[in-house]
Amino acid sequence: MERRGLIIVHTGDGKGKTTAALGLALRAFGAGLRVLILQFIKGKKDSGELKALKLLGVEIRQCGLGFITKENFAEQKKFARAAIELAQKEILSGAWDLIILDEINYAVKFGLINAPEILSLIEIRSPELHLVFTGRDALTELIEVADLVTEMKLIKHPFQKGIVAQSGIEF
Amino acid sequence: MERRGLIIVHTGDGKGKTTAALGLALRAFGAGLRVLILQFIKGKKDSGELKALKLLGVEIRQCGLGFITKENFAEQKKFARAAIELAQKEILSGAWDLIILDEINYAVKFGLINAPEILSLIEIRSPELHLVFTGRDALTELIEVADLVTEMKLIKHPFQKGIVAQSGIEF
Repeated sequence: MERRGLIIVHTGDGKGKTTAALGLALRAFGAGLRVLILQFIKGKKDSGELKALKLLGVEIRQCGLGFITKENFAEQKKFARAAIELAQKEILSGAWDLIILDEINYAVKFGLINAPEILSLIEIRSPELHLVFTGRDALTELIEVADLVTEMKLIKHPFQKGIVAQSGIEF
Repeated sequence: MERRGLIIVHTGDGKGKTTAALGLALRAFGAGLRVLILQFIKGKKDSGELKALKLLGVEIRQCGLGFITKENFAEQKKFARAAIELAQKEILSGAWDLIILDEINYAVKFGLINAPEILSLIEIRSPELHLVFTGRDALTELIEVADLVTEMKLIKHPFQKGIVAQSGIEF
């Protein structure tokens, strides 16, 4: 079969952008692909997905401090810079078949990294490497070069009914 | 924390409905929830997700023959009937915290099962049980009773560029 690395984007205001990327990691890992997940901004070390992925042996690295605040913005920016450099290094390493850049769109939106930096990741990759970009408000230029783009659209959220976020489901 | 079983729906014409449900299974399993996945229509035994879920120890059962064709329609209907009965039994068993009913919307759309059958699954569950319904063209009545509804919207698909489906990513 023709092996062709896909540029995949999950964007939109709905749930499921990261979750679908995790599902993709699961499927790809099960199919024998070498999968790396780099999470921008995020820093929660005890999430359900982290535990399950570690149990499986899927490589996941968190490169942030959690929610962006006025107080931690400068430090988040440093972390995002390190994350971009790590992404470049891993893309060039040849060690992976699929790299998921989780919340990277959000990092661009909030000015932690800039548009050319995210687009250059696509330019430097080998044509067999699959790359997944998640986060709301994906760049137009990213959508233009992508092969597979899904918008996760919020139709209804439990918050609207006054239901608090449920452990194991939403976090 | 208030434990409240959510009714979750992934619908729309885009990729990521099943994949996000798999990601949810991963997260929930990692968080210690007891997770069961019932796949309607599907019958592919060697998919990447099946291998990875089995490795993890997540229960997944396929209750179909794969693609619906004119030739297999009657038999698919029998399988879907058995799947609904299995879903009822498992919902009532108390053995699970999260049950994913993958492609069940599709089974309704194609007349393998009917609307009251899918809606009754919600009525018989205990209020702590999370239920996930995936598949395009979800019933309006289902969306009405749901807590969390995401529409996965197709923005761009590799098929449109003439790229064949990639192993480990799309199947």
